[in-house]
Amino acid sequence: MTEYNAPITEMEFLIKDVFDLNSITALPGYEEATPDMVDAILEEAGKLGRDVIAPLAQASDEQGATWNDNEVTTSPGFKEAYAQFVEGGWNGIGFDPEYGGMGLPFVLSNAVSEIWNSSSIAFGLCPMLTGGAIEAMHHHASEEQKAIFLEKMVTGEWTGTMNLTEPSAGSDLAAVSAKAVPQDDGTYKITGQKIFITFGEHDMTENIIHLVLARTPDAPAGSRGISLFIVPKYLVNEDGSLGERNPAYCISIEHKLGIHGSPTATMSFEGATGYLVKEENKGLACMFTMMNNARLNVGNEGFAAAERAYQCALNYARERVQSPVIGSKDKTSVTIDKHPDVRRMLLTMKAKTEAARAISYFTARQQDIVAKTDDNDARATADALIQLLTPVVKAYSTDIGIEVANDGIQVHGGMGFIEESGAPQWLRDVRITAIYEGTNGIQANDLIGRKVGMNGGAYLDILLPMIKEDLAAAKAKGGVFTEMAEAIEVGLNNTEKATAWLLESFKEDPKQAATGSVHYLRLLGNLCGGWLLTKSALIAQAKLDANEGNPAFMKAKINTARFFAEQIMPTSSALKAIFTKGYNAVLECEDDWL
Amino acid sequence: MTEYNAPITEMEFLIKDVFDLNSITALPGYEEATPDMVDAILEEAGKLGRDVIAPLAQASDEQGATWNDNEVTTSPGFKEAYAQFVEGGWNGIGFDPEYGGMGLPFVLSNAVSEIWNSSSIAFGLCPMLTGGAIEAMHHHASEEQKAIFLEKMVTGEWTGTMNLTEPSAGSDLAAVSAKAVPQDDGTYKITGQKIFITFGEHDMTENIIHLVLARTPDAPAGSRGISLFIVPKYLVNEDGSLGERNPAYCISIEHKLGIHGSPTATMSFEGATGYLVKEENKGLACMFTMMNNARLNVGNEGFAAAERAYQCALNYARERVQSPVIGSKDKTSVTIDKHPDVRRMLLTMKAKTEAARAISYFTARQQDIVAKTDDNDARATADALIQLLTPVVKAYSTDIGIEVANDGIQVHGGMGFIEESGAPQWLRDVRITAIYEGTNGIQANDLIGRKVGMNGGAYLDILLPMIKEDLAAAKAKGGVFTEMAEAIEVGLNNTEKATAWLLESFKEDPKQAATGSVHYLRLLGNLCGGWLLTKSALIAQAKLDANEGNPAFMKAKINTARFFAEQIMPTSSALKAIFTKGYNAVLECEDDWL
Repeated sequence: MTEYNAPITEMEFLIKDVFDLNSITALPGYEEATPDMVDAILEEAGKLGRDVIAPLAQASDEQGATWNDNEVTTSPGFKEAYAQFVEGGWNGIGFDPEYGGMGLPFVLSNAVSEIWNSSSIAFGLCPMLTGGAIEAMHHHASEEQKAIFLEKMVTGEWTGTMNLTEPSAGSDLAAVSAKAVPQDDGTYKITGQKIFITFGEHDMTENIIHLVLARTPDAPAGSRGISLFIVPKYLVNEDGSLGERNPAYCISIEHKLGIHGSPTATMSFEGATGYLVKEENKGLACMFTMMNNARLNVGNEGFAAAERAYQCALNYARERVQSPVIGSKDKTSVTIDKHPDVRRMLLTMKAKTEAARAISYFTARQQDIVAKTDDNDARATADALIQLLTPVVKAYSTDIGIEVANDGIQVHGGMGFIEESGAPQWLRDVRITAIYEGTNGIQANDLIGRKVGMNGGAYLDILLPMIKEDLAAAKAKGGVFTEMAEAIEVGLNNTEKATAWLLESFKEDPKQAATGSVHYLRLLGNLCGGWLLTKSALIAQAKLDANEGNPAFMKAKINTARFFAEQIMPTSSALKAIFTKGYNAVLECEDDWL
Repeated sequence: MTEYNAPITEMEFLIKDVFDLNSITALPGYEEATPDMVDAILEEAGKLGRDVIAPLAQASDEQGATWNDNEVTTSPGFKEAYAQFVEGGWNGIGFDPEYGGMGLPFVLSNAVSEIWNSSSIAFGLCPMLTGGAIEAMHHHASEEQKAIFLEKMVTGEWTGTMNLTEPSAGSDLAAVSAKAVPQDDGTYKITGQKIFITFGEHDMTENIIHLVLARTPDAPAGSRGISLFIVPKYLVNEDGSLGERNPAYCISIEHKLGIHGSPTATMSFEGATGYLVKEENKGLACMFTMMNNARLNVGNEGFAAAERAYQCALNYARERVQSPVIGSKDKTSVTIDKHPDVRRMLLTMKAKTEAARAISYFTARQQDIVAKTDDNDARATADALIQLLTPVVKAYSTDIGIEVANDGIQVHGGMGFIEESGAPQWLRDVRITAIYEGTNGIQANDLIGRKVGMNGGAYLDILLPMIKEDLAAAKAKGGVFTEMAEAIEVGLNNTEKATAWLLESFKEDPKQAATGSVHYLRLLGNLCGGWLLTKSALIAQAKLDANEGNPAFMKAKINTARFFAEQIMPTSSALKAIFTKGYNAVLECEDDWL
């Protein structure tokens, strides 16, 4: 079993120094998020993660959730750990105080989520899904509905689920076919099957609140005919006590590559009572509220898993002795972290993880500005950045999670293939993150379409000047900072060229750009990662100059940024070339050439 | 369960048309390998793979080999399938007729191995290891030893193993510590523990012949003090019948990420009787004979798994209906293979698989020339190509196996995470191939060191002119062929520049190049893959022009080569840049910056 220690120094550095916590604390409603509060929260979450949740990860992999006769028993220790999680008030830290939350900013709750996800993605999924349901209900449910359900979901006493997918309606929600028949009392009877429902059934709480997409009898075809319903596992009496069992059953759970601790349910709604959210046929809009946040949260899982895989590999590499260093006169065997190829792998893992984390924290900050600022321009800017970066956070970060976990196995050598080492689990667990909440290909199409191609690159016109400003500062600094800035600038130029081509070609035939949309997303992700690591390195140097903070940490930030500039950024020219010129053989490929 | 159909058209095209079977059949000893023989062997092997072995893959994943009290029970059906395999004479097709083999060329037996590996890597490992042991014994064992053991190993009646690794001696064989004490009768008593021993124990045959590295009492330290021993599970009486049980026990098997059907044994030699191969302290040289072939065979597993993953993903993509095509006026949902991003993934899978296969088949051809030619120059040339390309076949092909299997999961969307789809298994199974027989980092160091850096690039001076000649022919052809040739030429130029830097820097400080050796290997792998696909495309066009062969297949070869040129080759500039300039942050990284 491998330990997990939350990277609290890094988290605090990002939240306070790189992303200017003071400017968030200054927003109305976030006054309590002082530097001391941030330290205290991260410290305590780190302890719960390290001592309670992370030790369950491997056992939950070996003994996943089990199904029997419509009931699900979660992995050993999950129920107790969840109770401790609820008792500590952790579920509500980011939610509205009106419903029992702490109302802390997303820059902080996002870091706390990282701790849960690094500890165990399977465990972290339960509050993540509850959070999505809270979000949707907070924005769209009636006051009466909120009064009944919301507080217990915010505390975590009840959990929530999202019931979107059906056997023949995965990414394409227009094909949803579950039925909702209106009843005389204003409720609806929901009938249909939903698949891939995370924590759709479990034994950790008394009640589960399902949010379900379904169609009313007269609904128009396609995505405009979908409505959203609240379908509790147990109906709730007027006094708040639990009433009768709603016929919403988990009829099986999936046998999956990873996240065995997270039950993935097939739900059968058999005339279950549902309460309409908002109006009929407005379901998709309600769901989008929760999907945007869900995408940021899945991105969080990506780098959180990468962090765990990195810690696991680093610990192994620091202990495993094998062979002398190449070209060294000293023929004594050394720990493998000293071998150049292994050191490169470790730095690759670290640099990618920190790049993806920085983009996520940057985007979380924009969420906070949108939520609380009274400056309309600032809100519009922040909102544009969220729109643009949500697919990047989701896809770039989860691709990186897979790559880093895969490298982590390689660092372990033969032990990396042995389950007891822990290394394979992080790859198996994180693999789903590139698929659910919209596959990474769908994210890439969202990026080239809605987020860039269809608005003439307006969101990029907000982001790129911010990057240029920071690069100018790095360039002026000299030495490695100038080198880094120049490497990132190559990425910037390639992004600008790729974008110009995208805007042109998209008008004529979006298929060309869709062929290589993942390459464009990667190009933009690397640019943002390289930019924020360089920005972090500049701030770390300022800290060193001022004798502030942990010098080894600050030097590491500079070295990691340099590594990213040296080993990752040079791919940008290739990505641009493949994106803008690589579509012919795909588009001209006949069916029988595959 | 997903079907497997051996890509026989592709195999025959490569063996006969691209790699000129006639010139192999013309070698003394290979006369029987006529085109008809090749067709018949591939056809029959394809049937055995499809009908007998491939259907066991998924069940063997679910119920892997099990250990009880030093005995191992293999997965359901393995014993019967292995008996059928032996009965068909498949084990011996590549080995010396003097010992009961068919003596067919490696270009053919390598293709047949691909069929076993695509059907089930776990199953294929047993004959692969036996083959390695046969190889080592054929070259190094005494006539008496051969008389006792070899024929039954060639038929497959007995299997063989390689016992190299110990708990603290993985890649570093100099650290081997198992002991061999000479006895009065000329035998040795072997004592020690070996780990990660593939098919070290099983129930498919009556006897298992272990090849074991150990040290005699007076042996010098390090790799020069290692001897090789034959240690049979059961001693063999003079009449060839089985004698007493040798104390060579399997004391446990590993719980692994994949290849569950292949028992990975911890072997305890408890004073077991061993027979010295060749002389004391020559063990490493004997082992190297078998390691070179083993590396080519592991490379085969890489693209064989990729082929299986591709077939699995393609079948799914052709059936799964989801969403209309982007930018299309027709809003009908289509099968997902029509979506540009999915089509790109499928072509990426196909192109990488075919590139790795082509390099493997090309190298197999060189083996045949070395084995049978009486032209010394031709032998020297072929040997140089084998030396150079062995690490490429091993590492490039297995990296590709992982990437393709990972893409295969992605093509499946949510179903890709569900074990029943089959998709996750190909990733889990192939993951080990980048690790065993020398990790891919070790292969990359072998490439930049022994294969290029230490001989002044002499082997490349043989390979690169062959590439240039074919590129000139492609360039002269015009159209897409010229475009492809130009794309490959960029890779060639970058390889030449990277090599020039390597030869310079390696003299001063091999650590610089060792930092990015995997990038250099990838650069060379892409160059070779791009070259051989382009060469294949030219031949396919000639076939089309002559109205020979299956036109859809020939057009597909051209399109796939074009795809490789468009989507893979542009990375060469980045790989060169990272290799030649990306080492600073690695080499200057302090321990506490990780």
